[in-house]
Amino acid sequence: MAKILMVIDDLAEDLELYYPYYRLMEDGHEVIMAANKKGMDFKGKYGVPYSSTMSYDEVNIDEFSGLLIPGGWAPDKIRRYEAVLDIVRKFDEQKKPIGQICHAGWVAISADILRGRNVTSTPGIKDDMINAGSNWSNMPVIVDENLVSSRWPKDLPEYMKVYIEVLNKFLGK
Amino acid sequence: MAKILMVIDDLAEDLELYYPYYRLMEDGHEVIMAANKKGMDFKGKYGVPYSSTMSYDEVNIDEFSGLLIPGGWAPDKIRRYEAVLDIVRKFDEQKKPIGQICHAGWVAISADILRGRNVTSTPGIKDDMINAGSNWSNMPVIVDENLVSSRWPKDLPEYMKVYIEVLNKFLGK
Repeated sequence: MAKILMVIDDLAEDLELYYPYYRLMEDGHEVIMAANKKGMDFKGKYGVPYSSTMSYDEVNIDEFSGLLIPGGWAPDKIRRYEAVLDIVRKFDEQKKPIGQICHAGWVAISADILRGRNVTSTPGIKDDMINAGSNWSNMPVIVDENLVSSRWPKDLPEYMKVYIEVLNKFLGK
Repeated sequence: MAKILMVIDDLAEDLELYYPYYRLMEDGHEVIMAANKKGMDFKGKYGVPYSSTMSYDEVNIDEFSGLLIPGGWAPDKIRRYEAVLDIVRKFDEQKKPIGQICHAGWVAISADILRGRNVTSTPGIKDDMINAGSNWSNMPVIVDENLVSSRWPKDLPEYMKVYIEVLNKFLGK
């Protein structure tokens, strides 16, 4: 069983945060929520609460097999921390599965990992995704090597099915 | 692939409604949300929206292989409709998997299907569950034949893992 890192901040899309969180736990994995500071309490767009149990500075990338970035407004906040962008780049360099849904693409843009990659996102940030050098399509899920992207809550079943396939392949299962 | 019925009303616990909904879709099943009236828009305790696409009167039990009852305050409303209690009793008589989490036990109480059954629920309604004749325990998930019960959102990964096992057994998979 693996450890998965989820980067969080205030106003994530509640289901885009919690569906992947519980889904990976269902498969026996441990999901750690990390933020700029440890022990911070946040609320999603609708008000569902969640908390950070690790700070970005404490993240030891070698311990983790995958990364998840939720959507909502949280990515607008998450992308402002250089520590997160460094984390995202290292996960990507090590080909560890990165899952990004909805507005999560903003974080990948600021980490500058999208050049030439096939991705999707909420159509709302399509222009930002294209300007960052990606090949953007309007599809429920797109896989580009270790990068798994999706659009919105209704895609969650398909998104997680594919993310888990990519994760299991990475884990050699 | 099967059709699963979810009975809904206002103020369900958002994750207890949506995690099972998306999880069963991930396995290829169709989940239909039914309420007293079709086409009604509801919001969960935190405000996540959902809608009914079928009325209780339109439910043809023979089409469905399983039933899900979310928690939150919705069960306090759902249990007031005789049509729902009739649906619950018929699913139970036909040994079709019934999933109930948190306060969902109130609906099973009013359908009077709990006598002598092993169940759990949020500890908040423990007394109601015991008074309805059940053998109540404080456990993440309890299975009694076709009846799968659970306590709260943190149990969702374990709850769905077990519900899906019971469903797959019912479907002969």
